[in-house]
Amino acid sequence: MKAKSKKKRNNLSNLYTVIIAGGSGTRFWPLSREETPKQLLSIDGKETLIQATVKRACSTVPFERTYIVTGPGQAESIRLQLNASTGVDWDNNFIIEPEAKNTAPAIGLAAIHLKHLDPDAIMVVLPSDHIIRNKNKFRDAIMLGAKAAEENYLVTIGIKPDKPETGYGYIKSGKMIRRGVRSVKEFREKPAKDEAIRYLRAGGYFWNSGIFIWRAEAVLNEIKKHMPGLYKGLMDIDRAIGTKNLKKATNAAFPRLKSESIDYGVLEKARKVAVAPSAMKWSDVGSWHALDNVLRPDIDKNIKKGNLISIDNENSILYCGNRLVAAMGLKDMIVVDTADATLICPKNRAQDVRAVVDVLRRRKAKEGITHTTVFRPWGSYTVLETGPGFKIKKIEVKPGAKLSLQSHRRRSEHWVVVAGTAKVRKGEKVYRVKTNESTYIPMRTRHRLENTGKKPLKIIEVQNGAYLEEDDIIRFDDVYKRKTGK
Amino acid sequence: MKAKSKKKRNNLSNLYTVIIAGGSGTRFWPLSREETPKQLLSIDGKETLIQATVKRACSTVPFERTYIVTGPGQAESIRLQLNASTGVDWDNNFIIEPEAKNTAPAIGLAAIHLKHLDPDAIMVVLPSDHIIRNKNKFRDAIMLGAKAAEENYLVTIGIKPDKPETGYGYIKSGKMIRRGVRSVKEFREKPAKDEAIRYLRAGGYFWNSGIFIWRAEAVLNEIKKHMPGLYKGLMDIDRAIGTKNLKKATNAAFPRLKSESIDYGVLEKARKVAVAPSAMKWSDVGSWHALDNVLRPDIDKNIKKGNLISIDNENSILYCGNRLVAAMGLKDMIVVDTADATLICPKNRAQDVRAVVDVLRRRKAKEGITHTTVFRPWGSYTVLETGPGFKIKKIEVKPGAKLSLQSHRRRSEHWVVVAGTAKVRKGEKVYRVKTNESTYIPMRTRHRLENTGKKPLKIIEVQNGAYLEEDDIIRFDDVYKRKTGK
Repeated sequence: MKAKSKKKRNNLSNLYTVIIAGGSGTRFWPLSREETPKQLLSIDGKETLIQATVKRACSTVPFERTYIVTGPGQAESIRLQLNASTGVDWDNNFIIEPEAKNTAPAIGLAAIHLKHLDPDAIMVVLPSDHIIRNKNKFRDAIMLGAKAAEENYLVTIGIKPDKPETGYGYIKSGKMIRRGVRSVKEFREKPAKDEAIRYLRAGGYFWNSGIFIWRAEAVLNEIKKHMPGLYKGLMDIDRAIGTKNLKKATNAAFPRLKSESIDYGVLEKARKVAVAPSAMKWSDVGSWHALDNVLRPDIDKNIKKGNLISIDNENSILYCGNRLVAAMGLKDMIVVDTADATLICPKNRAQDVRAVVDVLRRRKAKEGITHTTVFRPWGSYTVLETGPGFKIKKIEVKPGAKLSLQSHRRRSEHWVVVAGTAKVRKGEKVYRVKTNESTYIPMRTRHRLENTGKKPLKIIEVQNGAYLEEDDIIRFDDVYKRKTGK
Repeated sequence: MKAKSKKKRNNLSNLYTVIIAGGSGTRFWPLSREETPKQLLSIDGKETLIQATVKRACSTVPFERTYIVTGPGQAESIRLQLNASTGVDWDNNFIIEPEAKNTAPAIGLAAIHLKHLDPDAIMVVLPSDHIIRNKNKFRDAIMLGAKAAEENYLVTIGIKPDKPETGYGYIKSGKMIRRGVRSVKEFREKPAKDEAIRYLRAGGYFWNSGIFIWRAEAVLNEIKKHMPGLYKGLMDIDRAIGTKNLKKATNAAFPRLKSESIDYGVLEKARKVAVAPSAMKWSDVGSWHALDNVLRPDIDKNIKKGNLISIDNENSILYCGNRLVAAMGLKDMIVVDTADATLICPKNRAQDVRAVVDVLRRRKAKEGITHTTVFRPWGSYTVLETGPGFKIKKIEVKPGAKLSLQSHRRRSEHWVVVAGTAKVRKGEKVYRVKTNESTYIPMRTRHRLENTGKKPLKIIEVQNGAYLEEDDIIRFDDVYKRKTGK
């Protein structure tokens, strides 16, 4: 982040978006994985959640004032997705949190950075994994909230409930503060069904969306008051902003911070809290169960996707990919099928997918960490098979794209071209390998694969070696600015 | 089949086993496929059902008098399995039915063949897909039944029920004919639960096992009486036995025969029908549901197999392979997972798997026909990926085994060795390809792959071409006696 020169305030030029993108890939397993958490996924088959969030955010606040708070492991994937969807480079729009510590530290970290950029900064805090249908209503709520934020309110967007949902927290609103903004009387935990019905009937209750608007200075003042430990850590980082010690100071301070949500740590305790109600269609996509509100069901209330034979099913989520799934006689069930893992549970157990992921993490199972198909800026690869001493990949390179100039210490690679023509650099030699031709890359040899053609290049790579993990790569040059060197 | 020289009768030298192995791969989908019906599968992870059936049969009647009735598409796979499990060549022990026409035509066809071999032949008819735990009790029942068969009874083995099963037909027995054999009063369809309870309490009712013992001549006489159409067709074939027209006559007669079970066509109408009761532990493995009686359940009554995360499941069948399946909160459910297809349904829909297979057949879907891994006498291959113009296989060749000398008209093949050393013949050249080396087999080139080493040879084969099906093969020589020539 570079400090921006101060300009004279025009309307809303002090509005900044902070997108919190720290998910751990738990609740949407097996579609989400540790390396591809929910925000990197497309739920409805179009853009990914983070791409949609950024697009929506940038319709209100320009790209230059939009920041992503995320972990070091995910920044690269997010950057590549956003570069692809927006056509601009997001490299300077990241605030890296060394560890995920829930929302209070993430928001605090963003607040100190923004305050350095702009002492008058108003932050719009957006989770990265919401689905919102009405862009205009979203914008209206943000704008009304920003007005209250200027008056030092901590503003949260409240969603007008259209059914007695028991999966969300509620906000009980009080008197009108200004147009479109009310005071908050109380935050309420996820209610029981009868309580949710009562809220809906009574009116004045809103779903707590997790979208916040406040002055950076205002939220820091409240953190100072209610979370002194966090404030102290943030001040340690604050002193290093603008110096070369910033990364070191952040890395030192973060592990000592307590994991805490901004809701519990600040909002439930602060005085000047307001809610900007909105009738936008919103879902936090909190679990597989939520898909009922996001995708269009069939006549039997089933959500269906992929290579599916569906017979006599009812009110079930049948979310599949290319593999064949035959589901018959299911009621209120969830079936999620991916290339290497399948989840089957009743809808009322959707929250407990966490228990499955816990088992996977204990086993250090690859099905918890990564998908068989991995997307890269140049295209994608799919692991077709692994065995002792070998790994088989299908590699697809987009027209005009090229992989980094690289070498591997512990593996050699056979490439067979099955579609398109490859331009191959091997050592100092550059040559072409056509469909139905092959080439061999010995261990420790600098090489590069490029598709100069107009259609996708597909190659089958057979790796041989004692160690076949992705981290055995030395990059010497990369057009996508990924890390080079050992 | 070659006629055997007549020997002087000693005890039971006129006993022949006829194993009916015509399944269509429907009821155990996705584990069974059109090309690997149930009898070719191992349900409990040990020998396959046909291997177990033959082993059991041969403990009573020797191999030389054991015949398999099956279709032309399955004979080869069965022969290879039996050769492997018994160490003798079963080539001359097959009776081929051109089409599956239920049990009456299959048994009739076997009967005319056996009568030519031995006019006194007693047939022991065994389905190929039963699981039987007590070999001695099985043998005892056969021997007692054979005594009654010598007196021209049509004998069926009745299983003493140990619970009020509603999934089987029942036999109501009458008076004792001789030791261990009773007359049959009536055949009863699958009963309702309360009726089954009554049968169990009353005693004298037995499950109809589908195992029969009778003189070939006796059953043919009854077919003549009750199924004249079948008898006429059989006689057309009978006249051709011993001539070069046999195959032609069989192929001509079979399509005109009516599909009918021997139970309905003969047993329910014949007079001299007897039952030999047995207390052997028996299952006809009729559907996935039957696994409850075959495999050992866990403490929550789940049948579990394979790469599974199982949380809070109850009384469910969770039958998986190498892919990861996470099942949570299931009750009375069936989940069957294979490399390319998954089935999910409640137990009470197990019979309706047929409806899924019907959809697959209409779609001509590969998941109805074959598995991704196909076993061959020399080892196996697994299709890892197919795409336009290419197909990727992992090929495993057993030590000492070799593929046929072959060529392909419409594809070339790249081979990369990932384990072991290949001996390759390409045209007139013979050479070795070691681990991490590759070779290329152009279209129309005669080639052969052989593993002369002591450990399995694994190669990755990348096929390129416009047509990539298994039938693009011309075999010039094969050590496993598979068909050569165009």
